[in-house]
Amino acid sequence: MILLGIDPGCRFAGFGVIRKQNGVVVLLEHGCLRLSASKPLSERIALFHDFFLGKIVQYHVTDLALETPFLGKNAQNFLKLGYLRGVLYLLAHKNTIHIHEFSPREIKQGITGFGGASKEQVARVITQLFPRINPVFETNDISDALAVTLCGLWNTQKSQTF
Amino acid sequence: MILLGIDPGCRFAGFGVIRKQNGVVVLLEHGCLRLSASKPLSERIALFHDFFLGKIVQYHVTDLALETPFLGKNAQNFLKLGYLRGVLYLLAHKNTIHIHEFSPREIKQGITGFGGASKEQVARVITQLFPRINPVFETNDISDALAVTLCGLWNTQKSQTF
Repeated sequence: MILLGIDPGCRFAGFGVIRKQNGVVVLLEHGCLRLSASKPLSERIALFHDFFLGKIVQYHVTDLALETPFLGKNAQNFLKLGYLRGVLYLLAHKNTIHIHEFSPREIKQGITGFGGASKEQVARVITQLFPRINPVFETNDISDALAVTLCGLWNTQKSQTF
Repeated sequence: MILLGIDPGCRFAGFGVIRKQNGVVVLLEHGCLRLSASKPLSERIALFHDFFLGKIVQYHVTDLALETPFLGKNAQNFLKLGYLRGVLYLLAHKNTIHIHEFSPREIKQGITGFGGASKEQVARVITQLFPRINPVFETNDISDALAVTLCGLWNTQKSQTF
């Protein structure tokens, strides 16, 4: 199983790729796609599509983990998140990838044991789980993406066990 | 210029294709893509993508006209509209298509001369403008799509004239 977890955004899109084989979990890659705000939205959406299609093909991704979106104060940001998620749904269908979705609370609960945890608490647990990676994340997007990737991994393990 | 206007929806997506050549405007096709609610969302998004990619290639579409979305009572519908619009932005960028966007008020104003017009009033004007097409639209999605297509046409004419 190769799991891709993404925290999508029109400026920064954090991601993590995890492989699980014979019970061994390996973090293959983590990072953040940066999209310049000066580029038109349609170009950023196309860059986002091409970047994650590249990762899907490169790692033979089988599963995609995403956070369920919630409507915050800014409806336009919610809509833009919809644009990127639409592209991910398209990529998932075209590449026969299973989608796992988790609410923000489920992710925080899964990672820290507490559904009301802060982004910093989530990031701290992530660095403990992956001690070899840079302990100071450039942006919270990367630790958020790794958190959702791990939730996807545990979710699949659960469904395999029971 | 070949203009594709779409009123996107996860169940019904109305569309119109208009060609303008040497001052003559021809309605090449109009219709509604129906997506079964029993299909998973990712499959519907992929069907929506493939259908409109087909139209873009078939007619050599140069311009795309869309209504700007607004957040209604249902945030989930707004998000789903975002999924489809994200796919359209992607298609527009990949096929070098110019996007024209209009608010619901601009469309009603453009078609009927009154920004607060009802859907029925818009549909009536559309059937007057295209007398050869079926006067009773199966769904409002088709007349809405033709309305936004015409706005796109007039918008391009304006930008060509001035």
